[in-house]
Amino acid sequence: MNPAGLESLIEALRCLPGVGPKSAQRMAYHLLQRDRVGARRLGDAIQHALICLRHCRRCNTFAEDEICERCSSSRRDASLLCVVETPVDLNMMEQTHAYQGLYYVLMGRISPLDGIGPRELGLERLLERASDGVVREVILATNFTNEGEATAHYITAMLKARGVAVSRIARGVPVGGELEYVDSGTLAQALRERRGRNED
Amino acid sequence: MNPAGLESLIEALRCLPGVGPKSAQRMAYHLLQRDRVGARRLGDAIQHALICLRHCRRCNTFAEDEICERCSSSRRDASLLCVVETPVDLNMMEQTHAYQGLYYVLMGRISPLDGIGPRELGLERLLERASDGVVREVILATNFTNEGEATAHYITAMLKARGVAVSRIARGVPVGGELEYVDSGTLAQALRERRGRNED
Repeated sequence: MNPAGLESLIEALRCLPGVGPKSAQRMAYHLLQRDRVGARRLGDAIQHALICLRHCRRCNTFAEDEICERCSSSRRDASLLCVVETPVDLNMMEQTHAYQGLYYVLMGRISPLDGIGPRELGLERLLERASDGVVREVILATNFTNEGEATAHYITAMLKARGVAVSRIARGVPVGGELEYVDSGTLAQALRERRGRNED
Repeated sequence: MNPAGLESLIEALRCLPGVGPKSAQRMAYHLLQRDRVGARRLGDAIQHALICLRHCRRCNTFAEDEICERCSSSRRDASLLCVVETPVDLNMMEQTHAYQGLYYVLMGRISPLDGIGPRELGLERLLERASDGVVREVILATNFTNEGEATAHYITAMLKARGVAVSRIARGVPVGGELEYVDSGTLAQALRERRGRNED
C-alpha cells in the first residue's frame, strides 16, 4: 500500500527494541516529513558505528580501539575488577566517582528463558581476565533481578573454585530512603545484612 | 564517557519521536550487541528512503514517482477528493474498501502552538488541487481532535469561498458500540447529528 522504499524503512525500524508496527510507521513518517537532517545523521551514525565499534579485549565494553581508554589508563586500580551487565551500568558506576578500579562488561546476563547460559555469555573470558595475577578482588555489580542474581551466583561459584576473592555490592535501604516507603523485601534484606557499627 | 562513535549513534537515535536519552542508549546497545544485521538494514533503508521518496505532486503523500500509483490510476473516481492528515490515515481509509475516490494528504494539521498555520501546511496547494475542474466534492477526514477540527473548519471556509462542495465524515456512536460505554460528548453529537430514516 505504501511505496516500497517506505515499507522497507518501516520494516527496518522494527528491529529497534520496543518498536511495534504503529511506532515504526510514525517514526518513518517523522524522519521523512519532519527531520530529514536527523534521518541522514542517523543513517550515517549507524553505518559509522558498525564499522568503528568493537569490544575492548580486556573489559568487553564497546570501544574504538582494541583496548579501551579506561583499560589502558595507569590511573585505575588494576587489582579491582567490577563485573556489570551492560555499558549503561558501567556508566552508572562511573558516575558515583566512588570506584577507581577496572571493569568487565558481560553484555547481558544468564537468562535460560532467552537461551542465554554461561557459554553464550562467554563467562570463560571473564575467568581468564580475573585470573591474570593482578586482580585481587572481583566485585559483582549485576542487577538485583532474578537473572542478575543468578548470574552473580554462577560467577561467584566459578571464581571461588579458582581461588579468586569475590564480593557483591550491598543491598539495603537507599540513601535518603524512608523506611515507610521501602518495600518489605528490601527492608528484610537490610536487616539481615546489618553491619556492626565497629566496622565503620 | 562512551567512545565517540557510540555517543554519535545514541545522539542520532534521539531524533526519533518518543525516544529519550535512556531509550536511545538501550536502542544503540541493542543494535550493536544483538542485531547488527538489523542495524545495517536500518542504515541502508534510511539512506535509500531519503534518496528515493518524494511527495506525489497531486496527493502530496510519499511516492517514488512524481505522481503516485493511486493518482495515476484510471480506476479511481477523480470527482471525489478526501483530505486526510497523514499517510497512516490514508491507509486507514483505504482499508475500509468503502472509498474509491482520490486523496489529498496534508502531512500535518493546523496547530498554532507548534507554529503550524495554513501557510506552513501549504493549504494553497490543496486549493489548487481541489479547483482542477474535475473534483466535485471534497470530503474532510481530518481527526476529531481540536487541531483536526480547526483544520477542517479552515479548509471548509477556504473551499466554500471558491464554490467547491465540502463535506465532513460523520461523528457518532461507533459501529457495534453500546450507549452505556460511549462518552457523553460523542453521544450528544450523535443525537445532534441524527439522520431522518427517510435519508437511508
